This record gives sequence, C-alpha cells and structure tokens, in this order.
Amino acid sequence: MSKQVIRNFSAGPAILPPVVFERASEAIRELRKDGHAREADGTGLSILEISHRSADYEAINSGATRLCHEVLGIPETHQVLFLQGGASLQFVTVPMNLRQEGKPACYVDTGNWSEKAIIESRQLGETRVIASSEASKHDHIPELPSPEAYAGASYVHITSNNTVRGTEYAELPALAGDVPLVIDCSSHIGSRPMALSRVGLGYAGAQKNLGPSGVTLVFVRKDLLERAPAGVVPKYLRYATHAKKPSLYNTPNTFGVLVLKLMLEWLRDQGGVAAMGVINQRKAKLLYDVLEDSSLYTPHARPGSRSLMNVTWTLGGVAEGERDAMTKRLVAAAADAGLRNLKGHRTVGGLRASIYNAFPEQGVRELCEFLREFERTA
Amino acid sequence: MSKQVIRNFSAGPAILPPVVFERASEAIRELRKDGHAREADGTGLSILEISHRSADYEAINSGATRLCHEVLGIPETHQVLFLQGGASLQFVTVPMNLRQEGKPACYVDTGNWSEKAIIESRQLGETRVIASSEASKHDHIPELPSPEAYAGASYVHITSNNTVRGTEYAELPALAGDVPLVIDCSSHIGSRPMALSRVGLGYAGAQKNLGPSGVTLVFVRKDLLERAPAGVVPKYLRYATHAKKPSLYNTPNTFGVLVLKLMLEWLRDQGGVAAMGVINQRKAKLLYDVLEDSSLYTPHARPGSRSLMNVTWTLGGVAEGERDAMTKRLVAAAADAGLRNLKGHRTVGGLRASIYNAFPEQGVRELCEFLREFERTA
Repeated sequence: MSKQVIRNFSAGPAILPPVVFERASEAIRELRKDGHAREADGTGLSILEISHRSADYEAINSGATRLCHEVLGIPETHQVLFLQGGASLQFVTVPMNLRQEGKPACYVDTGNWSEKAIIESRQLGETRVIASSEASKHDHIPELPSPEAYAGASYVHITSNNTVRGTEYAELPALAGDVPLVIDCSSHIGSRPMALSRVGLGYAGAQKNLGPSGVTLVFVRKDLLERAPAGVVPKYLRYATHAKKPSLYNTPNTFGVLVLKLMLEWLRDQGGVAAMGVINQRKAKLLYDVLEDSSLYTPHARPGSRSLMNVTWTLGGVAEGERDAMTKRLVAAAADAGLRNLKGHRTVGGLRASIYNAFPEQGVRELCEFLREFERTA
Repeated sequence: MSKQVIRNFSAGPAILPPVVFERASEAIRELRKDGHAREADGTGLSILEISHRSADYEAINSGATRLCHEVLGIPETHQVLFLQGGASLQFVTVPMNLRQEGKPACYVDTGNWSEKAIIESRQLGETRVIASSEASKHDHIPELPSPEAYAGASYVHITSNNTVRGTEYAELPALAGDVPLVIDCSSHIGSRPMALSRVGLGYAGAQKNLGPSGVTLVFVRKDLLERAPAGVVPKYLRYATHAKKPSLYNTPNTFGVLVLKLMLEWLRDQGGVAAMGVINQRKAKLLYDVLEDSSLYTPHARPGSRSLMNVTWTLGGVAEGERDAMTKRLVAAAADAGLRNLKGHRTVGGLRASIYNAFPEQGVRELCEFLREFERTA
C-alpha cells in the first residue's frame, strides 16, 4: 500500500516546500558555505553550532536581507530586521517606537489580531479605532474613513491579512498626508505583489510564507527608526538598536534566519511574488468557487475582502443545532483522507483552509473534490 | 586522507551532541510521535510545519518543561517558560516585572553582560551596583556585601557565569531576608548541580548548554509572577501572561523547544547535572593546569572564580608589543589543526576556549597538547 499523501492546511506554523525541508535538514548535519547549496564546500559545522559573529552566518544574514528587498519588494528606503518574539512583541514595540506626544495611534479593527494590537497600544497611550468590521463578525475589510479621521495621528495600523476570519486587503491603502501606515502582514507577505512603498513599518511572524516560527521580519522606513527617544524606550526594544548592526545586536534565531533565506530563494525560483500571486489567485478561486456553488457551505468573508491565504467557511446550509456535530464529522473525515487541520480558529469555530505559498495546487483540488463529495453524501 | 576532526570552541551558538544534531535533522524530515525517537510512529509532518496548538507540539512543550524540573533541578515552586528574545530581552523584562515602588534594583557587576543588564534597569528606575570587579578587569567574582547593602531591594541580580571574562560563581549566593535573587545563567545552566531553590528568577539563552539560539528559558518562583501590575506593563512582557498557558501565549520557537528537549534528554542520559559536573570539573582542570604550568600563558580569572565553561587567558609571557601578533598566530595555527574559534571576545581580546557540556573531553586534551606544543616552539 502506498503511503498516504498528507495535505497540511495548518494556519501556522505551516507547510514549507520540500526543497526547504531538505536543505534545512541537511544544514543541521553540515552547513554548506553558501548557506545551503549541496555543490558548495561544507563548513564542517552544523548551522546550530556556528557563531552569529562568524563569516558563514554573516553571509546568511546579509543574503536573507538582500532577498527581502529583491524578492519581497521591500524598498531600499527601508531597514530590514530579523527579530524575535513574533507579531505579539511587535504589538508592543510599534507603539513604543512610533508613538509621538499628543498624537493618537489609529487602528483598524479586523478581528482577533488587530484587537490584540489595540490592547497593547491602549496601555501605552491614546489609541483610536478608526474603522471596524466587528458588527458583522469581521466578515470584511472596512473602508478607511476620510483623512480627517486620522490626520495628526502617530500612525495608522492595519492587519493586512486576517487568518482567523479569512479576510485580506485586496490592496494596501494609500494614506493621505505624512501619517505612516503600519501593517501586520504576517500571514500574506510574499504571496503577491504589494505596494510596500506605502508602508512606514511592516512586520511578519515568519511561520507562514517565510519559514519557521521564532523569527519576525520587520521592515521600517529609515527616517522612522529614530522616532523613539533613546533614554525612554528600553534599548533592546528600540528598532534603532537593532538597525545599528542589522539583526546582530544580540544572538538571533540563526537557524530560523537560514530557513527564511531558503524560503526566499525558493520563492525567487518560482518566479517571485508576481508569479506566486497568479498561482495563489488560482488556488483560492478553486476553493471559493466550490463554496459559492454549494448549498451546504457558506464562505465567511464577503467578496472583495476574501483572503487568498486563509479560506474560512461554515456549514450554513444545515440547522444550527446540527452544525457543530457535522463540522466535527467533516474535519474528522477529511483528516482520514489525509486532509489535515481544517478546523477553524478556536475562538470562532467553523472551517478554515490555510493555503500559503508552499501549499500545492493539487492539494487544493483534492480538498475541493472532498468537499463536493461530502456535500453529495451528507 | 581521513577528514580532519573539527573542535568547535565557539562561545555560542555552540556545539551540540552528535545525537542531537541527528535527531533534529531527522525531525525536520519527519517528526516522530514522541518528539524524536526513531522507533516511534511518524507524524507524517515536519517539526517546522506543525501547529503549536497540535497535540504533537503540546507533548514537546510539556515534555521539555518536565525535563527542566527533573534534569536541571528547577524546583516545582517555579514556573518554567520558553520565551524568545534571548537574555537581552530579559534585561528589560526582569526590572519591568520585579521592580517595586521605592525599592531599588541591585546588581553585581561582573563585566559585559551584567553591564548590559544594568543599563536597561537604570532606564526603568533606581538601580544600585552593590559589588563590582571592574577595577581588576572583571577577573573575579566579587564578594556580596553584607545584607544591609541590599535590604529592601526589589531584587539582587547576578550573572552567574561570565562568558567574556571567564568567571563563574562557584556557588549561588544565599541572600538574607526575602529579597529575590535573579540569575542570568545563560552560559552554565545544566553544567553542574546548582542551588536553584535560592533563586527567585533565572533566565538563560539556550544557545550554550540548552540547544539552539532563539529560545530563552525562564524560571520564576510562582509568587513573583504577579508582581508586575497588569495595567502598567505591556501584556506580552508580563511573565504572568506567558504562565497562564505555559509558553503558548503566542507562537513559540517550536523547533528550538524541540532541540532543547533533545538536549535535556541527552543530559539525562549522561547521568544528569551531577555526572556532568564531574566531567566539566575534569575538562576545565586539564586546561587550567596547562595554563598554570606555562610561562607563556596567563589565565585571566583568579582561582576560585574560574569558569568551567569559558576558559580565558592571555599571552602574558611575551612583551606587550608582540602579544597581539602572536595571539593571532596562535588562533590561526589552532584553526589549521582543527581547533576553531579560540579568539577572545571582541571587546577584550586574548584567548578563550568555551567547553560547554557537549564539548568532548578528547577535544580539550587536543587543545592542551596544541598549547604545550605551541609554547615549546614559539
């Protein structure tokens, strides 16, 4: 009997391409001099034991930084940093670094993750929610209000893709005036071309499209680095501290940065974000089409706000009393068929398929087929 | 020609045992159900792609936590946490969480790392240096002053092993009264039995005896968790937040925690910290004996304060004008012989051999032989 193919729909940490698993595994046995390629000379050491001050690691660090500019399209006006603590630590450091006296921090509330960001900001100073989709269970990306609503703000923060509710900004907003836009792009960076020149500061936990957990990508317009007063914000929490010797102020997650580099090389080899955007559009459309055509499934997010990365839906076509039991049955039957981790986020229930860059189109087709069959026999 | 054996004296990230490299590499290809063992069933997934909310990861997280108590000897009265950001972030969160109104934070200055901790503490409130070895280039662990010096303090902070200058507390101090002792034990935790019941809070970057970079072990007496006022300290930076759902408040460095678990299993299989302490005493003595017997080499640290983990010395036996050039020659000749990374910390120069738990005794013997031969022919 041939081994069952497993399709991992986990929202993150999430599936990586086979070549990245392969090279990461190899680098633990012995790091190659160029960071990974099998043809190159070995260093004689594992990636796990090399100093972050060594020439071999410096090459990984600077190579990964370069790829962030070249492959992700981060403008040269921005400083790239590989930090730790996930998006959750950024919820704290963004207001610490960017808030200015007497200027409120403005947030758009699109659910779970923006709410966590808002909580941290509120504790640190005046915080204004300028748009929210809460009233309709965060089923869409709300319109930005007119510029008067955020004029004079320290910054405007958005969660540009929302894993829990499955919504995404189809395009990053262009703010009026000189108010910096801050984006939490953890769950869709690298998935398609984005107008990153509109962004003052962006951050992303790596564990979706950029590799393993434990690395946070931050990119920040260089003129914003020094906004945080030196004697007030703790040294470790100032972006300027980490920018001085980029990503080497203290010991980074060296293995994580290597895997991030491998991910960006893979993305480049696929044709970069332009090619990836086309593939991701196609993958998501397959699934949304099945949900739209169905009388059992109801997509959660409204058209125009639908995430290409996290597709969320409920069993809207059955009576409420039976919904939870049938949802459980679906998740279990899918897992039996090798289609794993389709349960919605624990705070909202329902179903979710996370189909990041590394998730193969064939796996999406298998899920579509499964869902049609489940509906037919339900 | 047989391949040269490489001896990696890096101060961290540092060498891990071969079995840990092997199992970590394997877990990237496919995680086994018990976290690593080859005999157990495969999960069908890589450690890099599994959710931190999955049962497989929960087993790794709780297994690693248990081993911290059982193998490292962390008392059950203490909460174990796996965090991110290294010791450098702890320099900030310790004062944020433990400082009390009107009670100074007290520090012992034993060089580089304690100085960084002191800088962060000073920014956050009244900070008192109650002992220092600065006047003699941090060549020893200073005596603690009498209890009056720290009576009424929020806490007393020490760096219990100092990688840069190569000094170590032979025994953890027992403070008078109810002032909590805080230890940065990054570079020697797990190396020998320690009186951890004397400790209020301990922290350690994992990249020496506990595994890869990107994980920070924190253990904190449970009655201290709630010292930080909830509405004042940012939620993410409060230990209480991470204790509520231990180490799973946000996405942890999942791979890093797995490797930490593998390291602790290896340590257990060696006979634990008791057996390891005997081995480490023997390893360090070999090297200090060579340095003491020599007219070329001068150990930096005074007897009684010498680190078993980081052995530091200078070429005291040659004229100052020739010292730097000869030091460079030694480092280069050693590297040619496979003995790598003997250069002292960039801020102090000289020579340093880091011989953590995983560094084999045979490698120390090879270094001793090399040093004797270098002196003979110098």
